[in-house]
Amino acid sequence: MNFTGSNILSVNQFDRDSIDYIFSVADKMQPYARRKKRTKVLEGAILGNLFFEPSTRTRVSFGTAFNLLGGEVRETTGMESSAIAKGESLYDTARVLSSYSDVIAMRHPKAGSVSEFSEGSRVPVINGGDGANEHPTQALLDLYTIDKELAYHGQGIDGMHICMIGDLKYGRTVHSLSKLLSMYNNVRFTLISPRELAMPDGVLDTLDNAGHRYTVTEKVDGLVDADIVYQTRIQQERFASPQDAEQYRGKFRLNQAIYTKHYKPNTVIMHPLPRDSRSEANELDNDLNQNPNLAIFRQADNGVLIRMALFALTLGVVDQVEKYERDVNWYSEKSQL
Amino acid sequence: MNFTGSNILSVNQFDRDSIDYIFSVADKMQPYARRKKRTKVLEGAILGNLFFEPSTRTRVSFGTAFNLLGGEVRETTGMESSAIAKGESLYDTARVLSSYSDVIAMRHPKAGSVSEFSEGSRVPVINGGDGANEHPTQALLDLYTIDKELAYHGQGIDGMHICMIGDLKYGRTVHSLSKLLSMYNNVRFTLISPRELAMPDGVLDTLDNAGHRYTVTEKVDGLVDADIVYQTRIQQERFASPQDAEQYRGKFRLNQAIYTKHYKPNTVIMHPLPRDSRSEANELDNDLNQNPNLAIFRQADNGVLIRMALFALTLGVVDQVEKYERDVNWYSEKSQL
Amino acid sequence: MNFTGSNILSVNQFDRDSIDYIFSVADKMQPYARRKKRTKVLEGAILGNLFFEPSTRTRVSFGTAFNLLGGEVRETTGMESSAIAKGESLYDTARVLSSYSDVIAMRHPKAGSVSEFSEGSRVPVINGGDGANEHPTQALLDLYTIDKELAYHGQGIDGMHICMIGDLKYGRTVHSLSKLLSMYNNVRFTLISPRELAMPDGVLDTLDNAGHRYTVTEKVDGLVDADIVYQTRIQQERFASPQDAEQYRGKFRLNQAIYTKHYKPNTVIMHPLPRDSRSEANELDNDLNQNPNLAIFRQADNGVLIRMALFALTLGVVDQVEKYERDVNWYSEKSQL
Repeated sequence: MNFTGSNILSVNQFDRDSIDYIFSVADKMQPYARRKKRTKVLEGAILGNLFFEPSTRTRVSFGTAFNLLGGEVRETTGMESSAIAKGESLYDTARVLSSYSDVIAMRHPKAGSVSEFSEGSRVPVINGGDGANEHPTQALLDLYTIDKELAYHGQGIDGMHICMIGDLKYGRTVHSLSKLLSMYNNVRFTLISPRELAMPDGVLDTLDNAGHRYTVTEKVDGLVDADIVYQTRIQQERFASPQDAEQYRGKFRLNQAIYTKHYKPNTVIMHPLPRDSRSEANELDNDLNQNPNLAIFRQADNGVLIRMALFALTLGVVDQVEKYERDVNWYSEKSQL
Repeated sequence: MNFTGSNILSVNQFDRDSIDYIFSVADKMQPYARRKKRTKVLEGAILGNLFFEPSTRTRVSFGTAFNLLGGEVRETTGMESSAIAKGESLYDTARVLSSYSDVIAMRHPKAGSVSEFSEGSRVPVINGGDGANEHPTQALLDLYTIDKELAYHGQGIDGMHICMIGDLKYGRTVHSLSKLLSMYNNVRFTLISPRELAMPDGVLDTLDNAGHRYTVTEKVDGLVDADIVYQTRIQQERFASPQDAEQYRGKFRLNQAIYTKHYKPNTVIMHPLPRDSRSEANELDNDLNQNPNLAIFRQADNGVLIRMALFALTLGVVDQVEKYERDVNWYSEKSQL
Repeated sequence: MNFTGSNILSVNQFDRDSIDYIFSVADKMQPYARRKKRTKVLEGAILGNLFFEPSTRTRVSFGTAFNLLGGEVRETTGMESSAIAKGESLYDTARVLSSYSDVIAMRHPKAGSVSEFSEGSRVPVINGGDGANEHPTQALLDLYTIDKELAYHGQGIDGMHICMIGDLKYGRTVHSLSKLLSMYNNVRFTLISPRELAMPDGVLDTLDNAGHRYTVTEKVDGLVDADIVYQTRIQQERFASPQDAEQYRGKFRLNQAIYTKHYKPNTVIMHPLPRDSRSEANELDNDLNQNPNLAIFRQADNGVLIRMALFALTLGVVDQVEKYERDVNWYSEKSQL
């Protein structure tokens, strides 16, 4: 398993061994991400952080991950000022911009664009989201979070029960996560969504082929003995009409009362963030903030570990991280990390 | 006095001792800011420079201050692409973004937002301006400049005479500076503004309570024996009608002729910048550029010292700055610093 | 020849000796740009990368060049949030922003603005393009590319034949390159453009004065025995009417068939990029991508070398680059560099 010089474009390129390996590298990154130690292994290297579609937290997370390995970050946000607007091909853009950096993290609104870009690039390209298509680092951090949270309760992914709620039709994260989970054994899925936003058949086929069991439903009733509940945001615009949206209003939310009533104790709560906090009818109530099983912020934190791991892997420095280790000489006390 | 791990949110959190201490740390930063030496004390640390409201010079000043201590900067400008627009709470934003950095500098258009953000943050937060509310680093750099300029003339802040001119109603900087000056003894204020833009009663009460004397007036006549003249920008939009604005036109400006006629020699000229240079009727004429008492650029320079001091203080590295010292090996000759 | 502390504002400031010297320093930068080695000579120095007019690749190229010498980059893009919009003079902006960095790279839409800015700056300013006026680093990288490409074929610039095609009227790059070439001996020019977009008389005078020969024509026919073909983009908006544009459609393009038919073997193909790849009628067809004489990407790469050289020169560290040398410890294999 050697990722040196490789692109990271899709969850389809991984098998269970490669995932185990990536996760072991992510584990190794924890002391650096938590500022127990620091490393300068990538000092002098440059990340091209190309966000042709803006996304503050994904962009900053990639940049931070690279800085934590000692490297520098050059970035661009948005597309107006880019040559693409003047008719330049992604191939040309890639040929030029890739010579300015040692590795590229790229987000772009068009499905397939990152893969197309990678053909012109002279350095490894990591997909930071290409429209409705793929967002592999999100899928990896979701799976990594499940792995860590279950391990904390003495469990593993094989045989677990995950409940996915909300927009399962357009939710890129639940599709990619389902694909990754198809590499594991005997996973149970409870898929809760408005009928109009149900999980696509293609994903259900993947689950079938993997030998997993799933239940498709429009509401939670009775106890859900899930180990993980993965909540997503529903956007009103996804429905055929405002009336359609209104009839579902508040039915797919999760708050402490619903959690206590319907879920077994210690069910881990996940969400790809951001969550909409403007209304109590929204997907994940603030009253869950004190719930120790709310893993949403640990999930975001894990994104840094996964991205550090992918940089160390694609640039071939996994074995040199400790060699360039330094002490942290400033105040650093993170409450939750 | 220990600022390690603290937030810097408001001028109200300081007393005279803590200000003296901050200023002594700012003094210590001078050789690094002037490139006589450099230090790597924060090498490996990351500043989250979050400017949800754009402000080029404040943003760059924070970033430069952090770089001068050896650290890295990750930043974001504007709010469109941020999760806040999708309904995310400041608490959530803070929980996520604060795990990407070791300290945060934040500007946001909404009063109180930085304080609200700091409640979710796991790292120290420095307020870079929250709407009409506070901009504590500006107030500190203003006071620090007064201290240095007066010291150059063998004077101190106690007993000085300051003349504030322009928009004293909406001018956040003059309010905060007045608050800070209320910690000193026997300061005299001459407050010159259009009646519609007079200093608010709340600030006048603060001056009263501190035992300071002030004169409120609509124009400069006769000699003003001020030690400091603090000029601000008046925006036409602040008046009830264009006619109201027009009647005051040019009455609150300062140029070399007015300075020579009305102010005593060596009165120090300050301004928070930017100044409007499009018309001679504007607040601070370019013909003052050769006046050695024009302190406006030294004032901006001092912002870097104050911000370096606050980073060193909140990250607890004040005593280690020299330990990580290096020589400057490139050309560096700053005309005024 | 000492550039330490100098501004780089215009191609007019160079003579042939200074160009030879800059190119020798650019040569010296190759192992660092190609990641064979790295250097920390500018560690602790800060570039102010001020792009008041956005330009992704020029901005990133400057930033990368500075990072490759070990320095940090603080940058700003666009003008909305800048103080210039509030009426601040370029002099004031320069006084303030220049104290935040050790050298400035600046682009601005207004001709003459960078020069005006440099009068207020306390640090060296490098012009990254000021409207229709100058873009000296582009001109230098074009000339450097010609020098390298011809040297590869055992030739020199003196006595060469260059063919320029496309928008020769508004094309800033071909004007600046022509000026630089006027320092060389006995260069032949073939200038191919629509009549409405012909090379301005001022530039032709420069060629005359230099004793160069040129041919002005509207089309390629017969063999062009050029050593270099410099293609540019024609924008429809440049023509008096859409009909005018239409009559020229496709007449000034270059593709492999035209190249084979009209140009002698090994003619080097250049273009300032981006090229418009949306139509086959456009200036430089993708079918040339396999042509080893297509130098457009080497040309862009050379921009990093030229910018590294100018930073090392203006900051006076040319002789210290090796002293701060380090090994590259991560994966790095650039296909073309």
